[in-house]
Amino acid sequence: MPQPFDIAVIGATGTVGETLVQVLEERDFPIKALHLLASIESAGASVPYRGKNVRVREVEQFDFSQARIVFFAASPAVTRSFAPRAAAAGCTVIDLSGDLAVPHVVPEANAQVLATLKAPVQVASPSSSAVALALVLAPLREQLGLVKVNVTVAMAVSALGREAVSELARQTAELLNARPLEPRVFDRQVAFNLLPQVGKVDAQGHGVLERRLVSELRELLGLPLLKISVTCVQAPVFFGDSLTVSVQTENPVDLVAVNSALDGAEGIERVEEGDYPTPVGDAVGQDVVYVGRVRGGVDDPCELNLWATLDNVRKGAALNAVQLAELLIKDLL
Amino acid sequence: MPQPFDIAVIGATGTVGETLVQVLEERDFPIKALHLLASIESAGASVPYRGKNVRVREVEQFDFSQARIVFFAASPAVTRSFAPRAAAAGCTVIDLSGDLAVPHVVPEANAQVLATLKAPVQVASPSSSAVALALVLAPLREQLGLVKVNVTVAMAVSALGREAVSELARQTAELLNARPLEPRVFDRQVAFNLLPQVGKVDAQGHGVLERRLVSELRELLGLPLLKISVTCVQAPVFFGDSLTVSVQTENPVDLVAVNSALDGAEGIERVEEGDYPTPVGDAVGQDVVYVGRVRGGVDDPCELNLWATLDNVRKGAALNAVQLAELLIKDLL
Repeated sequence: MPQPFDIAVIGATGTVGETLVQVLEERDFPIKALHLLASIESAGASVPYRGKNVRVREVEQFDFSQARIVFFAASPAVTRSFAPRAAAAGCTVIDLSGDLAVPHVVPEANAQVLATLKAPVQVASPSSSAVALALVLAPLREQLGLVKVNVTVAMAVSALGREAVSELARQTAELLNARPLEPRVFDRQVAFNLLPQVGKVDAQGHGVLERRLVSELRELLGLPLLKISVTCVQAPVFFGDSLTVSVQTENPVDLVAVNSALDGAEGIERVEEGDYPTPVGDAVGQDVVYVGRVRGGVDDPCELNLWATLDNVRKGAALNAVQLAELLIKDLL
Repeated sequence: MPQPFDIAVIGATGTVGETLVQVLEERDFPIKALHLLASIESAGASVPYRGKNVRVREVEQFDFSQARIVFFAASPAVTRSFAPRAAAAGCTVIDLSGDLAVPHVVPEANAQVLATLKAPVQVASPSSSAVALALVLAPLREQLGLVKVNVTVAMAVSALGREAVSELARQTAELLNARPLEPRVFDRQVAFNLLPQVGKVDAQGHGVLERRLVSELRELLGLPLLKISVTCVQAPVFFGDSLTVSVQTENPVDLVAVNSALDGAEGIERVEEGDYPTPVGDAVGQDVVYVGRVRGGVDDPCELNLWATLDNVRKGAALNAVQLAELLIKDLL
């Protein structure tokens, strides 16, 4: 039994932060003191942990020397403000905000990177779609020889937080009741619609999340030159990101070998041909990435197609971060 | 002014059939008699045309020698039963059901095929996603040199008919009211979800619609060896199919030239960078395919990415079929 640790969760009232606290409890993470922190607007709220309601305090007032491991699950701006303080206090930092330029790790794909980190350790949990792709492609990378990955990510609104979840419900109810629609979080109707742009795009037309997925996936797979084409689409789904993936391969695709590698891999659950996994029916609340519709090309022997879906808040963020912490306390602290 | 024609529409009570009648009226198609036909279950209903309600009669009882042009907008089984009768009566047949093994034509892409057809003419209007891809890729095929097309199609429920439209509305209302969900047309929850399989799949795992898109697009572009990877996903959208498209090209992509070719092409409306088109906000009820998010690869010079959305019932089916009829009465009849 490892010694218990003092833990801080920043952004504890958000969708990811609250799930993170729940996952820490479920997995019986050895915690001495649990400090739940948020911005001044959310401070004072409480989050359930081990049968008690833990009060959320203001991060600005927190003395980081009280924590051994700090999870950053708030916005990039919050990470930017407080990660230096955490590092100065010697804390191990696990960033879920996408802000820190530190190694990204998905335990099932590139856990070996953790052993190379120097104290105070700073490590990042990548975006949900990068977690999914890393889990699915890492066990295939040797046998296939990845030439190019084409992916469309259909993102759940929960990626944008609680307000976005409420807005999808509100927009849907307004439409069903033929009331006028007033978009707030989104810039237009998202209910019964698809928005092919999530967040800002750069001068080349690529979205921030699209760029982020490309760089994170290359890093996670250890393939810095891998060609990747990504489009992120906002779908009218509350929870669960889904990906259609088409891979151009160096070697002809052997589906028996592919399925066998997927079945033997950690963090993946493959659904048999004929059936298929969906975000609502399979992924939500689960600790694995569901994979289905595994098939070759119509007539291209060097093509692999598949569909993957995962709980973006849980497996795609909170759980991956807790898995990182579990490895760090075993090997490093 | 061309002489007016006797027209029959089979499947007149369906989503596509009813829109077809509306488009014939809007475009002032020269009609002498309009015969609206359907299976025995739908016969007796009526469909509005030029301010009157036209009674729908039973197709089984129809004398095809009364019609010069017949649109098949019902199921493949209905086409299979009655297209031979129509051909025997010398009718020009325009098939929207996907059943007939006859040339597929999208006027803006391969109208030249019409001149090669012999009487009695039989021609097919392809699937909605093939119409979209043909319109977008035909004007680019020379300048880019298409090597491979990767596409994810997010299909509207209206592709499966009125019952599917009702079911999405009903499932959504049930979920918002926390009532138990009873899927009927779909095999599971489609509201707030994504189903990565539409219809049956074959032994290789490819869906019927995916296979159909591959063969139709190759035919429409006149590129029988073009590599195409397709995944069709059922989205909780009432009307409007959307496609994320990533093209591998032979020549480096010149975005100025691409945008200029798209802007000059018939049947397409390109949305400027920064903005983006959506099925609900742009495509529904319109006569063009909306294209947006036109961009190169992150670092692959031979990659073009874009998003396209169109009214699957109108531009993707009914309007394309009427456009075919307009060309046929000009050149052939």
